[in-house]
Amino acid sequence: MPDYSEIRLAKHFTGGSVTADLFEVTSREIPQPDDGQILLKQTHMSLDPAMFGWMTPDTESYIPPVALGSVMRSSGIAEVVASKHPGFNVGDQVMGLTGWSEYLLSTGEGLNKVPAGVDAETALSVFALPGLTATQGLFNVGRPKAGETLVVSGAAGSVGSLVGQLAKAEGLRVIGVAGTDEKCAWIVDELGFDGAINYKSEDLAGQLAALTPEGIDIYFENTGGAIQNPVFERMNAHGRVVVCGMIADYATAEPAPGPNWIPVIKKRLTIQGFTMPDHYHQIPELLAKLTPYVMAGKIKYRSHVLNGLDSAISGLNLFITGENKGKLLVEL
Amino acid sequence: MPDYSEIRLAKHFTGGSVTADLFEVTSREIPQPDDGQILLKQTHMSLDPAMFGWMTPDTESYIPPVALGSVMRSSGIAEVVASKHPGFNVGDQVMGLTGWSEYLLSTGEGLNKVPAGVDAETALSVFALPGLTATQGLFNVGRPKAGETLVVSGAAGSVGSLVGQLAKAEGLRVIGVAGTDEKCAWIVDELGFDGAINYKSEDLAGQLAALTPEGIDIYFENTGGAIQNPVFERMNAHGRVVVCGMIADYATAEPAPGPNWIPVIKKRLTIQGFTMPDHYHQIPELLAKLTPYVMAGKIKYRSHVLNGLDSAISGLNLFITGENKGKLLVEL
Repeated sequence: MPDYSEIRLAKHFTGGSVTADLFEVTSREIPQPDDGQILLKQTHMSLDPAMFGWMTPDTESYIPPVALGSVMRSSGIAEVVASKHPGFNVGDQVMGLTGWSEYLLSTGEGLNKVPAGVDAETALSVFALPGLTATQGLFNVGRPKAGETLVVSGAAGSVGSLVGQLAKAEGLRVIGVAGTDEKCAWIVDELGFDGAINYKSEDLAGQLAALTPEGIDIYFENTGGAIQNPVFERMNAHGRVVVCGMIADYATAEPAPGPNWIPVIKKRLTIQGFTMPDHYHQIPELLAKLTPYVMAGKIKYRSHVLNGLDSAISGLNLFITGENKGKLLVEL
Repeated sequence: MPDYSEIRLAKHFTGGSVTADLFEVTSREIPQPDDGQILLKQTHMSLDPAMFGWMTPDTESYIPPVALGSVMRSSGIAEVVASKHPGFNVGDQVMGLTGWSEYLLSTGEGLNKVPAGVDAETALSVFALPGLTATQGLFNVGRPKAGETLVVSGAAGSVGSLVGQLAKAEGLRVIGVAGTDEKCAWIVDELGFDGAINYKSEDLAGQLAALTPEGIDIYFENTGGAIQNPVFERMNAHGRVVVCGMIADYATAEPAPGPNWIPVIKKRLTIQGFTMPDHYHQIPELLAKLTPYVMAGKIKYRSHVLNGLDSAISGLNLFITGENKGKLLVEL
């Protein structure tokens, strides 16, 4: 049998950038399934900001870190190429926690078949973690009401771009915060946001005030960073802050301080963090909520596709630099 | 008729300490009630940290600031000394927003009679703003469960001391944070807290870890300050942070930054601010919740009593220095 490649975590990530020495790339012979198993050939791997947490030794996190010496965790799309499992046929497309590996054996546990008519990029960009996260965070934590104003950071990212479009579809005023003029133009011109702010530009407070004349009711936080304080100043009474990601601080040894809490009292704010592993049992209801928006053509996305298993390693740095344009995927 | 004194706000408070030039003390002739009015002689005035907000020009706050030239707002206990109102008799004791004044006319609107058998100090220290605030914040925001661990800052203060005692009565482990060794001794020896930390001592993180071996489920925030970061590090998954006061920052021109939000995600925390004016319609249910604890002898308090109307001005500085011991009152 020919060989395949897989990538194992060799060292913990401790900040800075993601370097090749954190991983071990190994070559193995492609195995054959035993009874009850299937052999999967992965076609698309998802790269997600949550991976920074999985690569650190922090034992307090919501999902256990990847053990040193284990295949790096990731979700992806794979094709069944051999089956000794009655529930799977050769040619089936499945989605699940496939890991950084070109081939793998599975009992089918934790795998879902990709629905007919949904291509791999849409499956990973909309119906997988990004869409579930956006739906849970916006609707169940943010509790949006038509006419309210929502500001979302990381607005051109995989979660932020969906949050903004779902909120627009619900009748909110939506302002996105992103890190390049190109991303700002994309979310306004292509996704229909009401406005965009490049957080690297000057006078964030002034721009934010001009774009949120009636204040801010919901802040959906994907990044952290300098936008936090001006947003806090403009929150309306009983505003909700949905804390989904802090990508600006994942790679720093000393996380930046957050806003002072005086506005939390004055405006009676609720700041709530969430992560999807608490809500896996809600996936059917989340998909039921999300799917009609997709079917109605309300949801656009773009993918940033890298090529080849090895590209995953340096690809993670695109989250840190903000150079990814859309959902990061690796095509194998 | 003889004269009485009242104190009006002459300038806004902008930080630092509370000085006499912020106020105008005036003398007026005691009026007589018209039909439907009562004349009140105030006997006890309450001083509360919320006053710092009322003295600033911030129009975004939850309750309008005191207009320059108006009598300074405060709650208090007064005796009816003349009545042309069918609902009030001379000798009745009433509680309400009486203001910094020795005498005042009222239509009775917003006044409540002090229940028989409750003395003025208990009324202001337990059944007025401090008890309502502690009850709303602990039970309706904090959602305590027996066996959990609660940390409260400002633990020897009017609200914090009640929060800790109510939580103890509910079966929680309670650790208080205060600013003097005397206060720390009082909350442990007299109020029955499980432990206390002087926030001015060294190694806050180490002391906190030793006193909260099972982590922290609820943090009740009355102060802000250096305790925030070590508390954040020890919050348990799904922990609740009740933001009630930020006295450490009310008198500073540049409020100190808050904790970074990475733990908000990792531990899926909820941070929620509240203020009592949103909950005035719940006062009957809050008193119904609080009263049995008081009747059962579970609630102790101490008052720090100042004398004479003028003492209110410099008295506010005791909140800033932390020198007040218990509920601050002015006896007239």
